[in-house]
Parts: sequence; C-alpha cells; structure tokens
Amino acid sequence: MQEKVTIAVDALGGDHAPSVVLDGVAEALAADENLNIVLCGPAQTVEPFAARHARCVAQATTEFIDMAEHPANAVRKKKDSSIVVGCRLVKEGAAQGFFSAGSTGACLAAATLVMGRIKGVARPALATVVPSPLKPTVLCDVGANADCKPEYLVQFARMASVYAEKVLGVDDPSVGLLNIGEEETKGSQFAQQAHELLKEKEPRFKGNAEGRDVLAGTFDVIVTDGFTGNVALKTLEGTAKVLFGQLKQVLTASPTAKLGALAIKGGLSDLKNRVDADAYGGAPLLGVKGACIVGHGSSNARAVRNGILTTALVVRADVSGLIEQTALR
Amino acid sequence: MQEKVTIAVDALGGDHAPSVVLDGVAEALAADENLNIVLCGPAQTVEPFAARHARCVAQATTEFIDMAEHPANAVRKKKDSSIVVGCRLVKEGAAQGFFSAGSTGACLAAATLVMGRIKGVARPALATVVPSPLKPTVLCDVGANADCKPEYLVQFARMASVYAEKVLGVDDPSVGLLNIGEEETKGSQFAQQAHELLKEKEPRFKGNAEGRDVLAGTFDVIVTDGFTGNVALKTLEGTAKVLFGQLKQVLTASPTAKLGALAIKGGLSDLKNRVDADAYGGAPLLGVKGACIVGHGSSNARAVRNGILTTALVVRADVSGLIEQTALR
Repeated sequence: MQEKVTIAVDALGGDHAPSVVLDGVAEALAADENLNIVLCGPAQTVEPFAARHARCVAQATTEFIDMAEHPANAVRKKKDSSIVVGCRLVKEGAAQGFFSAGSTGACLAAATLVMGRIKGVARPALATVVPSPLKPTVLCDVGANADCKPEYLVQFARMASVYAEKVLGVDDPSVGLLNIGEEETKGSQFAQQAHELLKEKEPRFKGNAEGRDVLAGTFDVIVTDGFTGNVALKTLEGTAKVLFGQLKQVLTASPTAKLGALAIKGGLSDLKNRVDADAYGGAPLLGVKGACIVGHGSSNARAVRNGILTTALVVRADVSGLIEQTALR
Repeated sequence: MQEKVTIAVDALGGDHAPSVVLDGVAEALAADENLNIVLCGPAQTVEPFAARHARCVAQATTEFIDMAEHPANAVRKKKDSSIVVGCRLVKEGAAQGFFSAGSTGACLAAATLVMGRIKGVARPALATVVPSPLKPTVLCDVGANADCKPEYLVQFARMASVYAEKVLGVDDPSVGLLNIGEEETKGSQFAQQAHELLKEKEPRFKGNAEGRDVLAGTFDVIVTDGFTGNVALKTLEGTAKVLFGQLKQVLTASPTAKLGALAIKGGLSDLKNRVDADAYGGAPLLGVKGACIVGHGSSNARAVRNGILTTALVVRADVSGLIEQTALR
C-alpha cells in the first residue's frame, strides 16, 4: 500500500481555474486512494467541492495573486492568497506538498519564502521534464534564477539528478551542461567555469549539451542558468506549436488531405501525446523544504491530475530529503 | 541589368565538399549572369572546374582548416588556407564577398582579422534568418560573441535591421530583445540593461521577445547575446528535426499510413521547404568590411547556390556601407 500523503492545491491556479482544477482534483483523488487534498481558494468554491468529495478538505482563502502581479511583492502583501496559504500548510506540516497552475513567479517566491530553502541549497531551481518523444530530459533551471553563479549549476545537477532518478526512474542519470559547442573550451566565461566545476565535482557530468540535445534525449539531465533554460524551453515549445499548427493546415487543406489525415490519425495522436508536457504535470521547484510543483497556466484537467499525482510521488520518494543529503556533500 | 560582382568561394567548406560546392557554384553562375566567382581550394580541384566554367577563376590554395581546429589559431597559422585566402581576396578588392560552408568559427575569425571590422562596430555579429513558415526573423547574434556587453546589442539591432530591410525586403523592421518575460523588469541583469539601452537608442525596438517568438514571426529582428542566440537556434533546429523524424515514422508505420502519407505529400513537402534553412543560404557575419556568409556544414548544392546568390545580394545592397552609417550614428 502506498504511503498516505496530503497535497495542498491552489483552486485558483491557471487560465481555466477553478473548473479544470476541481476536475483535476477529482481525477487525482480517484486515481490514488491514499491521497488527501487540502483545496485552497474562495469558500464558495472549495467548500461545496470538499463536501462532495471524500479525502478532500476545504481551506478558505480571501485573496488572489494575478499572473501579472510582481511575484515577491504579491507574496509579501497577500498573506491570505491561495498560493501563500498552500505553501504555509506545507510549512506547518498540514500538507507535504503544494501544486498550483498559477503564476510561476508567485509560486517560486511563496515556496522559497514560506516553505524555506533546504539547508545547504544556495538557490532553489525550477526544473522541467522536457517531453521528448525519444527520452525525457530534466532541464534545470528554467527560470527561477535569471542570474547564476557557476557553482549553483553543480547543485542544480545534483537536485535534478535526484528528480530524474526518483520521479522518472532513471538509473544513474547522465548530466550535460547546456553550451554552444561540444569542446570544453567553448562557450561564455560562465559556461566555461561551470564546465570546470561540474567536471571536478559531479561524477555524473558527461560534458556539454547543445540546443539540439534538449529534445533529443542525449542526456537525462541538462543544467543551465535560468535565463538560457527558459529561452530554450520556450523556443522548444514555440517550435512544436508552430509546426503542429502548420501540419494541421496541411492535413485539412483539401478533401484528399483530409482522407490522408484520417489514415494517420492514430499515429499522429500518439506522437502528440509523447510530446505533451501535460503528461509530466508541471515543473518542480527543487531545493525547498517540501514538494512544490507548478503547472502550465494552460493546464487542462488531465494536466492538473498529473501534476497532483506527481507532487504526491515527489513526497513519497522523499526528493527533498535526498536533495538535502546531496546538497551538503 | 544587375551590377557585376565577384564572390570568393571556399571549395573545401562543408561536410560534402568539394562536390556539392562545385555543383552549387555552377548553379549560382547559371542563375546570375553578372556573377563572377573566384574558387579557392586545391589546384587539382579548382583549376579544372574554372577551365570548364565561364566567369569562374581558380585560386589555388595549399592548406585546409578542419572543423575541429581552434578557429583563431588555425587562421593565424594557415595563411594559405581556402578560408583565409578567400577573405584576403575581399580585403585586397579582388572580390567583394566571401562564402564558405566550412568552420563557422574559422570564417568569423578570418573575416574579422583579415577583412577587418567596419569603423565604429564594436563586435561583428553572426545573424541567421530563422526559417519560419509564417514570417522570417533575423536572429542576431547566434554565436560570434558568447559574452556581450549590453551596448553591443544596440549595434546588433541596427546591423540586423539593415539586413532585414535590404536582403529580406522588410519595410521598417521591428526589433525585439530575446528575454524571459514580456515586462521590461524581467530577465537577467544583462537583459534588463540591454532593454533600457535599446529603448533609449533604437526607435525600432518594440520590447521583449520570448523563446516562443523566434519561430512565430512576431518580430522582424530579434537580438541577443551569441550564447543565448546559439542555444535558441540549435534548440529550434533540433526540435524541428526530432518532430519531422517522428512524423516520418508515423507516415510509414503501416500500409494505411503510407497511403495517407501519399495524400499529404505535396503539402508536407511545401511545409518542409518553408522551414528549410537552406532557402536563405547561410548566416551573414555583420560588421566586417565586405560581405561574408557562412553556410551550414551540411549544405547541399542548392544551399551553396543560395548562399552565393545571397552573398552577391548583400554586396549589391551595400549592406556593409549602410552598417557603417548606422554604426557611427
């Protein structure tokens, strides 16, 4: 039997909240009978839902952090927002993890300020599982730290390796450094220094990765500063979106093309599922005391379900505890 | 009648040299009757070709710079390599432009050291035309300067705008800064400073671009440091390659799928052409005295042809002269 866990969920997170969040919570509860949910949001939303669902309790909140607000300021000011309250429940032990599809910046700020950093971790980092059709890669950092020191990347490598091992089930994950050439003398001064440090301190480090490796599954973990990682991730997502959009036009351009589209419908749908970020349910913030996963703003119910189940998995695998051990190494 | 121009071409550039280079030269000569070529390479390769082709003269060279060599060292040592000789022909006025599908680093080093920087240009930059199916975007820098100062990006914006206007025919190109959020307070310290400077000094600057804008045609020009630009470009290329590869598997997975593939063959082939970097023939190095375009190592004859014709266009449009005027502004 799986260990019982309690996850706090932000009912207001995402472009289609609260309806898709509530649907996702219901699906997650149905999928995992040892899962408990504390649903954070306006009383009129969360209380009727909790009353109708076993293993779900309501936590009424009165404030809301908008996607457009300055994250750190909003977190400091809105102490009764669903995001801050969700993180506080973890801090106080009423929940072990927090999931939101709301403002990434606000979640990062709240988790860091309220849950707190793991001892020895210089900077918590946002990771994401790149949905490669070939082999998933954990890319870290994808935006928590726009400016990094080279030594942070050694910790990113260790934290992301714990995630790859315990959550994705990768045995002895390989680590690459996102750079602009394979040779170790390539790249910016920052990348060269990070390369040196990783070579010295991280036995799993296998050398430089390039942009083309991000979706190709060449490495299990790719580390970078949060600026470069965010640009790479959004370039990848944008490229896939444009190409699938163009492909759709090709497939509907004529009656003949539509017949052709029917013939490959199943295969194409499989391919789309394999490059679907929703399968991994969101981006984990690594290095805070407790599990924290941030879903895409455009999350649907399935993505919310997967995000909550992944948060439970992160708790059960004790990712934070293992990160604490590696961070202090 | 078009102005007569002479382009020096590296016969040894690229993975499939010299055969595809020679084919590309022949195609370019056939396409443009006011084009002259100086073909640089081993005597036994370039002399028989020049003897068979009007408007082509041979320039025998005795050395070769390998893709794996340290660019600046190789350029300093191998003075009789096809790359260094090609750039010297431009310096001496025997040609007005140089095209190579060889080592990008060696071409950058040779063009900068031998042709020289345009007065007032702090750093020559490598641009590329992102092959968007929607609208092409000039991305600059994509690798010449891994470390940049914010003020370089103002010059990159002006140089790339000249290219967009004169070579792609874009009227009053819009400029974006590659960053990790739309708001001007977003991003690394470097990106925030670059944003400030661009806002102050470049009227065409329209704000921050994100990774997803690179292929979406949101801006005519996107500027960034050479590290981030290179990662974004290779991520984009890698994503397209993986997705087209996967799509090919879907289209050949079964007899039914193969029939479907037949029905969409034309549309798919159109789409592939629209995202084909070869259509633009290579990456221009902006800011050197003379035209210099570097093709992909994997260039085929068509890419070489297009690269040479684009180099001629850059010469005829006096891109370098216009850059000199904007750089000194």
